[in-house]
Amino acid sequence: MSTKLTYFDFRGLGESLRYLLRYAGVDFEDIRITFEEWPKVKTSMPFGQMPLYEEKGKTVTQSLAIARYIAKKAKLVGKNDWEDLEIDAIVDTINDIRQKITQYYFETDAELKKKQKEGPLFKETIPYYFERLENIAKENSGYMAVGRLTWADFYFAAVGNAMNHFSGIDLLKDRPNLQAVKNRVENLPAIKKWIEIRPKSDF
Amino acid sequence: MSTKLTYFDFRGLGESLRYLLRYAGVDFEDIRITFEEWPKVKTSMPFGQMPLYEEKGKTVTQSLAIARYIAKKAKLVGKNDWEDLEIDAIVDTINDIRQKITQYYFETDAELKKKQKEGPLFKETIPYYFERLENIAKENSGYMAVGRLTWADFYFAAVGNAMNHFSGIDLLKDRPNLQAVKNRVENLPAIKKWIEIRPKSDF
Repeated sequence: MSTKLTYFDFRGLGESLRYLLRYAGVDFEDIRITFEEWPKVKTSMPFGQMPLYEEKGKTVTQSLAIARYIAKKAKLVGKNDWEDLEIDAIVDTINDIRQKITQYYFETDAELKKKQKEGPLFKETIPYYFERLENIAKENSGYMAVGRLTWADFYFAAVGNAMNHFSGIDLLKDRPNLQAVKNRVENLPAIKKWIEIRPKSDF
Repeated sequence: MSTKLTYFDFRGLGESLRYLLRYAGVDFEDIRITFEEWPKVKTSMPFGQMPLYEEKGKTVTQSLAIARYIAKKAKLVGKNDWEDLEIDAIVDTINDIRQKITQYYFETDAELKKKQKEGPLFKETIPYYFERLENIAKENSGYMAVGRLTWADFYFAAVGNAMNHFSGIDLLKDRPNLQAVKNRVENLPAIKKWIEIRPKSDF
């Protein structure tokens, strides 16, 4: 098989790529690295990071870049350059808040973590972003961009669960349009099937 | 004028867009917000952020998404989808290390900042990234991707100065291939002229 995706044995940043590959009907090897294997594998990764995507013997990292590439195969991109700009922009915005929440979760300094939990991240930043994301999903009729299904919806659906888990909050509660985005992606036949058969993990 | 770029009165994340617009020959209004104006302007910005790009009355934020869009006008993109993936991936990698350095610079907790200065960021992460970026520039004959001039070079050249300023290190010293990328972009006639006439700022 010439297409391979190498990532940890959880959903994380790999799941949007698994969704997109499944939706696109690309036959790929879903390689999962355990935490035991990771220190050794890490040294072989460009910039020590996964996911790693391989096609016809060529490899590349960076999850959003890979997602955009697979989205072109899946015809989940814009109809013109401006639409692609709108899709790219909302993906980067979702990624901004995802990064903030992920950094909080993996903060190892207990005092600093407590400060963040009680401070601006939870009191201001998260509500600020999700209020605006909900409005954007509403304006786009239950999609993240351009009023129809694009890879921005796949990205949001795939990282939404991780953001919930990492923040300890149900971020989609009382946000029906964001919930609609997630439901719509998860109910696509290819994704529904994947969710049934995929390895179980917390995030 | 129908094209407008709104950003702070410094280079930062706006400069790669100014470079690309200049190179593309797009006539645009270079709107600069002072720190005094910013609190008021911030409330009108989607997600409270700049740069904001406007074209034909439509606006969008997110610097990398905008850069990719202008790069298409400037013909600084890949020849096929895989080349675009390689360009996108290196841009995201440069952005990763830029973010880490920028977060350090703007850290307000003095003790935490000192820890970072003496810890893994400066001892491991920065050398690790720049050694690999230098190798990539070498493999690509003095370009960041696909062996010829693309918007990845513009992005690297534009944020390189900011990374130097924020880290307090000349990150391109003894890295001739990265220096070549920066020099090449800065010596393009449109960019050379812009550098001569642009407002002066530290980063």
